[in-house]
Amino acid sequence: MSTPPNVLWIMADQLRFDYLSCYGHPHLHTPHIDALAARGVRFDKAYVQSPVCGPSRMSAYTGRYVRSHGSTWNGMPLRIGEPTLGDHLRGAGARAVLVGKTHMVADAEGMAWLGIPPESEIGVRVRECGFEAFERDDGLHPDSAKQNWSAYDDYLVAHGFESDNPWEEFANSGIDPDGELLSAWLLKNSRLAANVPEEHSETAYMTNRAMDFMREAKDDDRPWVCHLSYIKPHWPYIVPAPYHDMYNERHIVEPIRSQAEFDNDHPLMAAYREARVSRSFSRDHVREHVIPAYMGLIKQLDDNLGRLFAWMDDEGLSENTIVAFTSDHGDYMGDHWLGDKDFYHEMAVKVPLIIADPRPEADATRGHVCDELVEMIDLAPTFMNAVGCEAKPHIIEGRDLTPILHGTEGFSRRYAISEHDYNWSEMAAALKQPQFDAHTKMIFDGRWKFIRCEGFRPVLFDLETDPQELVDLGASPEPEHVEVRARMEAALLEWASRHHTRITATPQVLAGQKSASDVGILIGFWDEEEYEEVAGKPFASLTPAGPASRRK
Amino acid sequence: MSTPPNVLWIMADQLRFDYLSCYGHPHLHTPHIDALAARGVRFDKAYVQSPVCGPSRMSAYTGRYVRSHGSTWNGMPLRIGEPTLGDHLRGAGARAVLVGKTHMVADAEGMAWLGIPPESEIGVRVRECGFEAFERDDGLHPDSAKQNWSAYDDYLVAHGFESDNPWEEFANSGIDPDGELLSAWLLKNSRLAANVPEEHSETAYMTNRAMDFMREAKDDDRPWVCHLSYIKPHWPYIVPAPYHDMYNERHIVEPIRSQAEFDNDHPLMAAYREARVSRSFSRDHVREHVIPAYMGLIKQLDDNLGRLFAWMDDEGLSENTIVAFTSDHGDYMGDHWLGDKDFYHEMAVKVPLIIADPRPEADATRGHVCDELVEMIDLAPTFMNAVGCEAKPHIIEGRDLTPILHGTEGFSRRYAISEHDYNWSEMAAALKQPQFDAHTKMIFDGRWKFIRCEGFRPVLFDLETDPQELVDLGASPEPEHVEVRARMEAALLEWASRHHTRITATPQVLAGQKSASDVGILIGFWDEEEYEEVAGKPFASLTPAGPASRRK
Repeated sequence: MSTPPNVLWIMADQLRFDYLSCYGHPHLHTPHIDALAARGVRFDKAYVQSPVCGPSRMSAYTGRYVRSHGSTWNGMPLRIGEPTLGDHLRGAGARAVLVGKTHMVADAEGMAWLGIPPESEIGVRVRECGFEAFERDDGLHPDSAKQNWSAYDDYLVAHGFESDNPWEEFANSGIDPDGELLSAWLLKNSRLAANVPEEHSETAYMTNRAMDFMREAKDDDRPWVCHLSYIKPHWPYIVPAPYHDMYNERHIVEPIRSQAEFDNDHPLMAAYREARVSRSFSRDHVREHVIPAYMGLIKQLDDNLGRLFAWMDDEGLSENTIVAFTSDHGDYMGDHWLGDKDFYHEMAVKVPLIIADPRPEADATRGHVCDELVEMIDLAPTFMNAVGCEAKPHIIEGRDLTPILHGTEGFSRRYAISEHDYNWSEMAAALKQPQFDAHTKMIFDGRWKFIRCEGFRPVLFDLETDPQELVDLGASPEPEHVEVRARMEAALLEWASRHHTRITATPQVLAGQKSASDVGILIGFWDEEEYEEVAGKPFASLTPAGPASRRK
Repeated sequence: MSTPPNVLWIMADQLRFDYLSCYGHPHLHTPHIDALAARGVRFDKAYVQSPVCGPSRMSAYTGRYVRSHGSTWNGMPLRIGEPTLGDHLRGAGARAVLVGKTHMVADAEGMAWLGIPPESEIGVRVRECGFEAFERDDGLHPDSAKQNWSAYDDYLVAHGFESDNPWEEFANSGIDPDGELLSAWLLKNSRLAANVPEEHSETAYMTNRAMDFMREAKDDDRPWVCHLSYIKPHWPYIVPAPYHDMYNERHIVEPIRSQAEFDNDHPLMAAYREARVSRSFSRDHVREHVIPAYMGLIKQLDDNLGRLFAWMDDEGLSENTIVAFTSDHGDYMGDHWLGDKDFYHEMAVKVPLIIADPRPEADATRGHVCDELVEMIDLAPTFMNAVGCEAKPHIIEGRDLTPILHGTEGFSRRYAISEHDYNWSEMAAALKQPQFDAHTKMIFDGRWKFIRCEGFRPVLFDLETDPQELVDLGASPEPEHVEVRARMEAALLEWASRHHTRITATPQVLAGQKSASDVGILIGFWDEEEYEEVAGKPFASLTPAGPASRRK
C-alpha cells in the first residue's frame, strides 16, 4: 500500500478479557469482535501497566510504565513535559484524534509554572493528553453536567431528553415498574433498563461520533490514529433495552474463588477482601444483578462495533485502516472474593487485545492467536510505526508489535509489569500504610506471577499448575518457590534500575557525549606524543605561542 | 532573628574531601575552610548522587536522585518540567542566584515542543537550571571562547590579556623557561605557573563577582540563596604563581592501592583500570606533576574564601548568612589504580560538606563533626527551610539537615545512594555494553558499600574492616557477605520502587483522591440503606423522579 494506513484504536473500559466469545465466554456471543479476531491477531497474554483506569491509560497514551510517567492513580495529573503518542505523531505529520474517554487530568500547576496558557493551542494539546479532541467524554461523575456539561448532554437535550443533568438522569438511571426513577449508582438497580433508548445511548452516540470523524478526515491528507474510547461496560452498570434483560442467572459463570483464598492471612489481601466493593461482589445476589447488566453492555458494544465495521466497509475505509480493540483493565465481579479491579489476578490485569492489519504483509497471520507476553505500552510504538513515525527508544518503553502482526522475527519480552498505587484506598486506611509506601508491583514471566507488596511479603502464583490463581505461594518454603521469588525480585530490580527518565537522550545527544576529546577536552594525556598515538593526528594546541599570549 | 537568613552555597569542582586540613590532609593547610568548620558543622559522611559533574549537580539543584531527574551524564539535557531549587524558592518569594558553574544543558527539544521561547523570561530561567544567572561560567571547553565567549573572557581582555581565546591562553596555559606557551590540557605542563596573575585568575574573579552580587542584593528585600560555584580544582590542572610551586613531591601522600586490587578480575573494574586516564594516573610521574598543582589550586581557593569571609564580616553580612561549602565529587589521583572520577570509592563519591548557620539555634553545634549519612540532595530542602519555603515532599527526595544544624531530633537516613551512566565511556566500548545497560548504582549504609553493576557481579566493600576499600567482597562466599549483598539488593529495590516521578501529588491532589464517594461516585453500594450506613447521611439521588426524566 503506498499511503500509510490509518489506525482505529478502540478501547472499552473495564472489559474483562473472558467476557467475549472469542476469549471463551460460554454464553456471551460477540460475533463482531470475534470477526475482527478472525481477520487479525488475537493476543492471549496482553497486560495493562496498572489495573485501574487513569494510570493504565496514561501508560497506553505515553508508551511508558507508570513508574516512568508518574500518574500513579486516577486524578493524578500527568506531569508537564511527559511526551505522549499524540506529540510523537504530530511531529511526524500524523494526527492523534480522541473520540471519547482519556481520564487524563492536566498538570495545571506545571503549566502555570512554565507559562503555558490553558486555552492556547499548546495548552489545549497538553490538557487533552496530546490528542486532538474531536470529542472528549470521560463520563464519570454523577454531577458531571454541573462540572463539565458534555457534548453528549447537549445531544440528549437536543433529542428531547430535557434535564439539567441528562447523562445522570437518562444514561445512568432506570425506571422501575412503579415509574420511579432509580440511580444505577446503587447496584440493586442494575437490571432495570436504562432510561434512554439504545440508539441514543452513549455507546451508540460515541460510535456515531467516530463515523463523523472518519467522514471529515477524508478531506485531510494526514494519516491518523483515532482513539475511539468507550466508557462502558464500566460502572454505573445499567444498559438500555433490549440488552437489559438479554441475560439472567442462567448465563452467569461460577465465581473463581476458593475457601483457601478466603483464609489467606496476607494482610494486604485480607484488606482487599474487607473493602466494601469486595464484600459486596462476594454476595451472590449482587453478582446476579450486576453481571447480566455487564454482559448486556458488552453485547450492546459488540452490536455497535458491527454497525461501525459495516459502515467502514461501505465507505471503503476498512482496506486502509488498522483496527485495534482492547480495554484499559478488567473487573473482578466477585472472583477471588474481590470487586472492581485494583489487583493483579488475570480478570483484572489481563485484557482483550485484537489487532487487524489490512496490509498484505499481515495476510499470513490472520486469525492467529498470539501467546507472546505483550503490554498495553506496546500499542504506541506499533501505531507510530504504522503511520511512519520514527521510533523513540529513549522515551517509549513499549515494543513495536509489527513483527507479530506480520509474522516476522523481532519481538520478545521476558516479563510483563504492572503497578498500583493504593494510597487513596480503604486498604491503605485499614493498614495505616503511609502514602509513599502504599504501592504494589506485579512482574509476570508467562508462568510465574510475582507481586511485590511494599511493607508485606510478596504474593506468588504459578499459572501453569494453578491457572485460576487460587494458591498463593508467596510464603512457600519449597526451594523452587524460594528460587523463583529471588529471580523475580532480581528481574524487578533490573527493570527498576533501567533508564526511564533519561528522555532527552536523543541519538544526537548520545553521539555528542562520546566526543569530548574531539572538542579539545583532553583527560589524562601526558604529552603530545601520547595524544598523537590515541588521536592519530598531531596535537594542535589551541594556544599558539607568541605575543598574543603576553599581557599588553 | 526576625528576617530569614540568606544562604551562600559555595561549591568547588572535583575537590576530594581529604585534601583539606580539617578533613586530615597532612600537608595541605586550609585555615579558612577549617575556620568555617569551627563555626559550623562538618559532615564526615556526605555523598554525591553521581560521581561526575553534570548528574551530581542536577541532583544538587533539584534535590532529587539521578534516576528521578534523568540527566544521567554530562551534557544530558535536564528534561523540561523537572522542578529545581530555584523554582521552589521563587514560588516562596526568595531568590536563587548563580555565580559560576552549573554544567546544566537545557532541553531545547522539550522547550520547542512546549512553545517556550529560549529568550523569554521563562525560557532563560529554564536554560539556567532555575537560577537567576548573575554570572554563569561553566569553564570547560578549550574553545569555549568561540562557542560562548564568557564575561571572564571580557574581563581578561579588559585587563590587557588580549586574545581571541583568553580563557584558554591565559587561565589554562603556562609559559616554560624558554618562553613557550604550553597547554595545561597536557598533564606534563601541570607544574608551570598559569599564564595569568592570581588576582586575575578565575578563582579570584568569581570570588569578586560573589561580592558584587551580595553588594547589589542589599537593595533587595527578598532572601536569597547564592550559589558560588567555582570551576576549580577541576582539570585543566594549572594554578597561578605563587601557588604553582608551593607543593612538591614531599607533600604528596602515598597512593591508596594494592596489588590485590590491581589483580581484581571484575570485568568492569578491569575496564576502568584500563581506561587511559587510569593508566595515566597510575604512573608516579603523572601524580608528581598533577598533585602539586591540584594542591595549589585548593590552597588558592582557601585563600580566596578567607578574603571573601573577611569581606562579609566587614559588610555585616556574616551574621545573617548561612554558609555552606561542598564539592560536586572528588578525584582519584591514581588511588585504586584509577584516574579522574566516575566510580564510588570514597575519594570520588564522598565530598567535603561544611555548613555554618549563624542563627542562635545553631550555637549548640558549632565545631561539631557529624557522622550521619547525608546526601547532596539534602541541601535543597535545607536551604528551602532556611529562607521560609514550604517543604515539597512529593518532589524533593533529599532530607532537611536543619535538625542536625540545630542539634535536634528528626534526621535519619539508612542508605546513601549514588548512580553512574557510563555509556559514553571507554569502559562501555571495551565491554561492548549496550548503552541502556551501561550503568551502576551504589548503596552505602555507613559500613557496607554495595555497587550494583548491570550485567556483572556486584562489588562490595566493608569500610569497618577495610576503610581503604582495598578488598572487593562482591564474590565472597562468606555467609555474612552473601547476606549483606542480599540485604543491599533488597534495599536498592525498595528505593527504586519508591514513587519518584509522582511529582504532581500535591497535598490537594492526594486529599482529592480519597473523596470519590463525596462527589457521588458510589462503588459497590447495594442500596440506600447500605449507603446511609457508610456515609452516615441519607442517599440523595441526583435524579429526582418525575417529568424531568421523561423524554419530551
